Amino acid sequence: MRDAFHDELNALTDRLVEMTRLVRSAMSRATTALIDADLQLAESVISQDAEVDRIHAGLESSIYELMATQQPVAVDLRTAITALRMGSDLERMGDLAEHVAKIARMRHPESAIPAEVRDTILEMGQIAERLVTKTGACIVGQDIELAKELETDDDEMDRLHRRLFRVLLSKNWSHGIEPAIDITLTGRYYERYADHAVRVARDVVYLVTGSRDPDPSE
Amino acid sequence: MRDAFHDELNALTDRLVEMTRLVRSAMSRATTALIDADLQLAESVISQDAEVDRIHAGLESSIYELMATQQPVAVDLRTAITALRMGSDLERMGDLAEHVAKIARMRHPESAIPAEVRDTILEMGQIAERLVTKTGACIVGQDIELAKELETDDDEMDRLHRRLFRVLLSKNWSHGIEPAIDITLTGRYYERYADHAVRVARDVVYLVTGSRDPDPSE
Repeated sequence: MRDAFHDELNALTDRLVEMTRLVRSAMSRATTALIDADLQLAESVISQDAEVDRIHAGLESSIYELMATQQPVAVDLRTAITALRMGSDLERMGDLAEHVAKIARMRHPESAIPAEVRDTILEMGQIAERLVTKTGACIVGQDIELAKELETDDDEMDRLHRRLFRVLLSKNWSHGIEPAIDITLTGRYYERYADHAVRVARDVVYLVTGSRDPDPSE
Repeated sequence: MRDAFHDELNALTDRLVEMTRLVRSAMSRATTALIDADLQLAESVISQDAEVDRIHAGLESSIYELMATQQPVAVDLRTAITALRMGSDLERMGDLAEHVAKIARMRHPESAIPAEVRDTILEMGQIAERLVTKTGACIVGQDIELAKELETDDDEMDRLHRRLFRVLLSKNWSHGIEPAIDITLTGRYYERYADHAVRVARDVVYLVTGSRDPDPSE
């Protein structure tokens, strides 16, 4: 039977899922902005991160209020605290998409991404989107099997990240230092974005099973 | 008047302060390991991060247990939840020190740090230490004036971070791509370490004043 408290918990879930949608869209646009040197798209990502922050702040306030007024215990308390953690990871994913967009903006009208790494960055962007899509589905469906898939996707992200360094360090690299710095930072942003998506999925597993694996060691 | 609950909250504070000491020592040793290409020191940072993780896990369990059994409200609830946030930031600072140590280890027996950026990295290391020392003092003394000083130290960190990029991009840079990648990542680790120290200090302000500034935009 549902009650007011559980309706409020469900509303929190809806907001977390909404955050996954926003940070997915942000990273998707940031990737395109980076590859196509699209300033307008980059600006849209940068300005719209405020919306993610706004939802996050509202989520935190609601959770604090819920805890203060309803004094949840056991599973309900765990859910409320875990929703705080998830919200903070998703907020950070929005920041990371914004960082990618800022690199695109900084190098406009040039692209920060030379041809040799274009495909790798595109793939990292696709995996980032796939990860956060699954994260959203995990939250909605409390799906712990799906949560495990994210670990595999994250391994794929790490593999691409290493490939990026191999290109930068190959003797054919002809673009000098500045693009190497941009790509090093960009790679780091995608990798961290993926780590946070995995953390959120692990929180779903924790909510469902009550036990937690150690945090991902990057 | 003190009671069992507040004794437990004080014990949480002690553990947070202990974490500031460990992550300060870790970053201090990581900086030396990086500059001096000291493999043994780098290994000590890497292996001892498990101790930070262990304290953090214990802290989290204690807070969950405290919340479940004591059902704190109002200020006590805020304190318990904020201690969770602080613990997670400090745990992350340990990871970042470990990342710096891993760069030192990867380049051993060479130093990852060419002479031109040695002083800047040393200064970043010193500011990192100063920040976390103040963070610890803020926690102990609930000192909101000191918390404000961290913002200034963090500005100094950002200034050094920009200086690092100027050196990498100067036409005198003769060390090629690999050290540029190492230094880009290292700079990022110090900068993030500082951001997390500032977040913890802001949490102290929040606990004392009950209101929160927006999160630092990096």
